[in-house]
Amino acid sequence: MIVERLNKLREQMRQKQIDVYMIPTEDFHESEYVGDYFKVRKYMSGFTGSAGTLVVTLSEAGLWTDGRYFIQAENQLKGTGIDLYKMGEPKVPTVEEFIKEKTPEHGWLGFDGRVVNALLGIKLKEALEKKDAKIDASSDLVDAIWEDRPAISKEPAYLLDIKWVGKPRKEKLSEIREVMEEKKADSFILTSLDDIAWLLNIRGNDVTYNPVVLSYVIVRKEECLLFIQPGALNEIVQKELEQDAVKIYPYHSVYQYIQAIPETETVLLSKKRVNYAILSGLKEGITIIDEINPTTTKKAIKNKVELENLRKSHIKDGVAVTKFMYWLKHQVGKEEITEISAADYLEGLRKEQEGFLELSFDTISAYQANAAMMHYSATPEHNAKLKPEGFLLVDSGGQYYEGTTDITRTFVLGPIPDEWKKHYTLVAKSMLNLANVKFLYGCNGLNLDILARGPLWNIGIDYRCGTGHGVGYLLNVHEGPNGFRWKHVPERDDQAVFEEGMVTTDEPGVYIENSHGIRTENELICKKAEKNEYGQFMEFETITYAPIDLDGIDVTYFSETDKMQLNQYHKMVYEKISPYLTKEEADWLKEYTREI
Amino acid sequence: MIVERLNKLREQMRQKQIDVYMIPTEDFHESEYVGDYFKVRKYMSGFTGSAGTLVVTLSEAGLWTDGRYFIQAENQLKGTGIDLYKMGEPKVPTVEEFIKEKTPEHGWLGFDGRVVNALLGIKLKEALEKKDAKIDASSDLVDAIWEDRPAISKEPAYLLDIKWVGKPRKEKLSEIREVMEEKKADSFILTSLDDIAWLLNIRGNDVTYNPVVLSYVIVRKEECLLFIQPGALNEIVQKELEQDAVKIYPYHSVYQYIQAIPETETVLLSKKRVNYAILSGLKEGITIIDEINPTTTKKAIKNKVELENLRKSHIKDGVAVTKFMYWLKHQVGKEEITEISAADYLEGLRKEQEGFLELSFDTISAYQANAAMMHYSATPEHNAKLKPEGFLLVDSGGQYYEGTTDITRTFVLGPIPDEWKKHYTLVAKSMLNLANVKFLYGCNGLNLDILARGPLWNIGIDYRCGTGHGVGYLLNVHEGPNGFRWKHVPERDDQAVFEEGMVTTDEPGVYIENSHGIRTENELICKKAEKNEYGQFMEFETITYAPIDLDGIDVTYFSETDKMQLNQYHKMVYEKISPYLTKEEADWLKEYTREI
Repeated sequence: MIVERLNKLREQMRQKQIDVYMIPTEDFHESEYVGDYFKVRKYMSGFTGSAGTLVVTLSEAGLWTDGRYFIQAENQLKGTGIDLYKMGEPKVPTVEEFIKEKTPEHGWLGFDGRVVNALLGIKLKEALEKKDAKIDASSDLVDAIWEDRPAISKEPAYLLDIKWVGKPRKEKLSEIREVMEEKKADSFILTSLDDIAWLLNIRGNDVTYNPVVLSYVIVRKEECLLFIQPGALNEIVQKELEQDAVKIYPYHSVYQYIQAIPETETVLLSKKRVNYAILSGLKEGITIIDEINPTTTKKAIKNKVELENLRKSHIKDGVAVTKFMYWLKHQVGKEEITEISAADYLEGLRKEQEGFLELSFDTISAYQANAAMMHYSATPEHNAKLKPEGFLLVDSGGQYYEGTTDITRTFVLGPIPDEWKKHYTLVAKSMLNLANVKFLYGCNGLNLDILARGPLWNIGIDYRCGTGHGVGYLLNVHEGPNGFRWKHVPERDDQAVFEEGMVTTDEPGVYIENSHGIRTENELICKKAEKNEYGQFMEFETITYAPIDLDGIDVTYFSETDKMQLNQYHKMVYEKISPYLTKEEADWLKEYTREI
Repeated sequence: MIVERLNKLREQMRQKQIDVYMIPTEDFHESEYVGDYFKVRKYMSGFTGSAGTLVVTLSEAGLWTDGRYFIQAENQLKGTGIDLYKMGEPKVPTVEEFIKEKTPEHGWLGFDGRVVNALLGIKLKEALEKKDAKIDASSDLVDAIWEDRPAISKEPAYLLDIKWVGKPRKEKLSEIREVMEEKKADSFILTSLDDIAWLLNIRGNDVTYNPVVLSYVIVRKEECLLFIQPGALNEIVQKELEQDAVKIYPYHSVYQYIQAIPETETVLLSKKRVNYAILSGLKEGITIIDEINPTTTKKAIKNKVELENLRKSHIKDGVAVTKFMYWLKHQVGKEEITEISAADYLEGLRKEQEGFLELSFDTISAYQANAAMMHYSATPEHNAKLKPEGFLLVDSGGQYYEGTTDITRTFVLGPIPDEWKKHYTLVAKSMLNLANVKFLYGCNGLNLDILARGPLWNIGIDYRCGTGHGVGYLLNVHEGPNGFRWKHVPERDDQAVFEEGMVTTDEPGVYIENSHGIRTENELICKKAEKNEYGQFMEFETITYAPIDLDGIDVTYFSETDKMQLNQYHKMVYEKISPYLTKEEADWLKEYTREI
């Protein structure tokens, strides 16, 4: 089947005189999750992982993916004739290197410029210049051969009331125009779906877990152009938008509009975020200011209404997780519970909460050694049964009108070895250590990361990922520009200085292959502490309220400060959550939030 | 007097048709300390601070300096007609802004290109282009009017035996040539005096505290050109250098040589380190690779011989400081001791050590509120008498054949308030916390700084400077590219990843204006710890051996870990130092390194 599809693609390539064709995983907006319409790489290769790039030449094909997917890709690519290129392994060429080698002199590389990041497109263009080879980014060749291609999503969009988002779109637009004026930009081209949703106080359902609307925005001095699929907006929504000088245009017409921008203009955009078709559509003489989207920074700084709502959504979420823990601790070993049924049970508890809309991401419910795989996802075929022993790691979250949540707890289902307790306790220590820091304004995640990572580095363990990420407000569960990380990763804009109102997760962990996995994750609001002659001090407020399983804690690995911090945290959890529990649950919670 | 000098300078300016003349503080090599010959700014302005820039126009003159020197500069500039520009204060123009404004259209800015940093020169050139104004960087106008100008230093240079430096110059040169080959550089222009001293295993005495030789070096494939003052090298030294293909040329002829480099060549240099005359002397077509000097990185990574020697020099230094502490604690209140006499006494103890050459910097001996000024320097006019109360902060170091040392101890001379004890204890905690970190290879100072700063930030105090700096080997007490700092400072190359063999100070402090100052400083060698599936772990070895005054410690601010770390440190101090003490001193040290 895949072979046939590849042959059809090669026919298309021959017709268009394209020598090499590249198919990445992205949609037109560089989204983290993409709709079914955009799953071209999956359709053409059979590989279902969340990250990967397929490159097809007239005689061969290769798929690039990262360490998370080596085994899966190897299995799924069997018999397709597609070679697996393991990214990051020694001597494995990169996608760019491969394309550079395989594209003949004066040849053509093809791709759909709308699904290729602008910076990658530029890099490829430069790489091919020496061979006098060119890029044809004009067409989606797969579209012609994919007969039953799902339609592009066009769910109805809705507007969010000011009581949820705290700031009218008019005000947001005027703040963005102030930035544009400062930078002397005539247009601001915005293609990131979560930024658009934030800017226009609009939400939709075009991408699973992310309540966003497929659209493009161009902000100009007097007007804001919204390129959106006809029918996504009902009349009421449309009218309200038009009242704020938002003009509606058809979704795909953005490309014509961009090509018409006069070359005398100055355009603000983020090359890291727009696609290659957008960037290369702009006339040559146009002055481009390439910066992080001003919406990204403003969106990350939650206003007072959003923060107050967030605290409420986290109480709801905490109630669900606490009830889940109560159920799990009581029922494990008594009824059959699997990774998936546990996740479903938790989802049911979230659904009981008022204002709950959907999950904010696919729940990770991972038992024992499965939890050592950071991105494990149980399937009906691989779905462990829980026994009254060891750890169950559950990483989950919800979308509420009051915001987006993300919480991980690792539950002790029965006896665990001392070594696991040590790991569990040090993970709690790490998480608390970061949450309780006080720091001078100006710090970013690089400065603070070691507070969480240090206790694990001390015993020679690392968790090989960032310590935390920004979280949207009824938007994407992963958003920049804030985050905790110890090494600079250029393609991630997550090293902004922490500002009052930013929300970041704090989620250290221990992952021991073939044995066990532990992660404890709370969300933190950045707040101002005292200001004095040294500057403005900052601190975090924890807004995740659910017990950290005391059955996993061995106090010998805690300092007095650690104990005090855990006790204070548990006291708060009991105060916030117990009013929403049954008497039995509340009594149990009292015990599980006791002082140690 | 100053007025007269300025008038003479203006005469020179008129003759040369220069509208604005700039006089910075640097020598030809961007050295931290400069010889008397180079103190042109001091001669022309009367201002004696260690940092500042004088700009003279035909009708006015301005001096720029930073917060450390505002009061001093105000006093010293009185009656000179020179205006003080307080750097960093609101609405104060920068030197560049001032020059840009004052230089007329089609006018000329003059300076001695040899004492102006290349990057600053380029910046000024670009700033003036819009006015069609130009730069004349060809002459030192002050030279003509400074009648009794001290001669340029020309102290005899000497070579260091392999037993001190561990690696022959031939090997060092070949390592540098490997880097050059990789980068396809024909020439490597090196003007930093400490880098040259390291590369050629040569030392001298041309700059106080820095045992360096005024010289330039150009490394090429087959030869190494050393531009040095005639007479600085005796015949034996010259011969040994020539054996390693080092060719000797007159010091100033480097500029002619540079102008003769063919335009087809590729030159490796660091624009942050070379002067404007060097950079602008290169032909236009030359390809410049602007990178940190490869010598800087290699110099920072001490080899095994250097490390073994360093441990020895630190024992000597620790013996001197411990004996000083013994004397101070016993004599304060009994004999008259001043800040200066204390520093002299300590210098005397260092001089008793075999292999001691000179101090590595001007000793800071600061009593009580004086210690709150981070760069305090006692003078015969301002020289506090020590009383049996409060703190004496002593920051000092020595140059030994076995290396360079830098140590700060704050001594308790008698009763101190509880608050001061709290500060003293937290400074010790901070210092120990950083010294005992374990971290994955790849961390730099930005990642680790909070380990020292955090305990003070917790109580709303900051020390407003880096936590530590690299230290040379019988070279400059401040060297890059390693250091501990929480904010990126572009002009300082001190954020390199920590490599095995790097030596860095760890010196947190508390400075309370008009009250007291505390700093505790140890030096740390970076070492490899275990390597496992997570990567290469790194740690530090402390090589400074002197008691941290237990009279200042209040254990209620210490965790069990803090106590253990201080006890371990003090145990080591006793073991290393006591063999070199008298019986009385050793008994006393036993008490002052007791377990707490």
